[in-house]
Amino acid sequence: MRIGIIGAGSVGKALAGGWVRAGHDVTLGVRSPDAARALAAASATGARLAPVPDAAAGAEVVVLATPWEATEDAIEACADLSGKVVVDCTNPLRRGLDGLAVGTTDSAGERVGRWAAGARVVKAFNTTGANNMENPQYGDRAASMFFCGDDEAARATVRTLVEDLGFEAVDCGPLRAARYLEPVAMLWIHLAHERGLGREIAFALLRR
Amino acid sequence: MRIGIIGAGSVGKALAGGWVRAGHDVTLGVRSPDAARALAAASATGARLAPVPDAAAGAEVVVLATPWEATEDAIEACADLSGKVVVDCTNPLRRGLDGLAVGTTDSAGERVGRWAAGARVVKAFNTTGANNMENPQYGDRAASMFFCGDDEAARATVRTLVEDLGFEAVDCGPLRAARYLEPVAMLWIHLAHERGLGREIAFALLRR
Repeated sequence: MRIGIIGAGSVGKALAGGWVRAGHDVTLGVRSPDAARALAAASATGARLAPVPDAAAGAEVVVLATPWEATEDAIEACADLSGKVVVDCTNPLRRGLDGLAVGTTDSAGERVGRWAAGARVVKAFNTTGANNMENPQYGDRAASMFFCGDDEAARATVRTLVEDLGFEAVDCGPLRAARYLEPVAMLWIHLAHERGLGREIAFALLRR
Repeated sequence: MRIGIIGAGSVGKALAGGWVRAGHDVTLGVRSPDAARALAAASATGARLAPVPDAAAGAEVVVLATPWEATEDAIEACADLSGKVVVDCTNPLRRGLDGLAVGTTDSAGERVGRWAAGARVVKAFNTTGANNMENPQYGDRAASMFFCGDDEAARATVRTLVEDLGFEAVDCGPLRAARYLEPVAMLWIHLAHERGLGREIAFALLRR
């Protein structure tokens, strides 16, 4: 798959590394492809580098791994996303990580859906830390990755990408479920950082 | 421990049965202790029955296992909750189970805290189904129970009650975290009912 990841922070890098290892064609879309930080991200992951518009234009799947504040601009920079699968990994975190700026009457995922008109948006990779995206294995269990979006085929695509990283995929249906996935992310952050459990924790969905 | 559970629905019964088996002194507080439904709940669980005010008055720990709409009235009926540990199992579900009536800028747990002035409120037993409260075991793993409240001693009490049912306890700190636990509950409901996974699912917190 040709994947354009917008943002080369910790989440962008973790996803890029995993998908390169799974054999995908991955480009990191950044504002300045010749900046030292971008070059380091590319060499660490094996992904290519491109300006945001090019990374998006060449990709079947565009992954938003941006800070929430930068997300609307990043989508604008991507220009035409019509028909593309857009994976929203963002959380509308308030500065200070003390809560969500968007309530359960709406979600960042749904806003992304409205901003990226015509794109098939899937919320994913927002409910856990980048360390788990690098390695989702906990003993004999894989962490679960929850994802949702209104387009069934787009969700199937994202399921593959989720499983390519080694997660157990949990399809949560319509994009509206982002209203729950974003608070799940807050819970992860809260436990890891405020409650001192550290980042080597992950949610799993048990079944019997 | 002397425990008063307000509400004899599926959650109230599951908690009562488990805590009776763990050796606690459990009373189900109901509006009509001589109603057939209440009598059936008592005989199924081994708990005693009492009107709501008596169940609350005699208890060290008061557990709100009420529908959200009935919660404020139930607290009023409990009369004086000062100093008691109050465990809030409610979710502010909208009719139709299609979302939460209280957003992540507030939570049912925090509202309960304001209504039950002087009580030491802990949010717990809201993130999973009653079937998991009856049996939290999934193969060799226990489901996790997330709980939060502002009073540390009250949280320690609730930890015991959580572990007495066989859950792995996850202390989420201040009551404010109910803003995340209530959407986690919505995710469970959404997966079990809307997404057709059924109720034999549960969240676990993996650690490494």
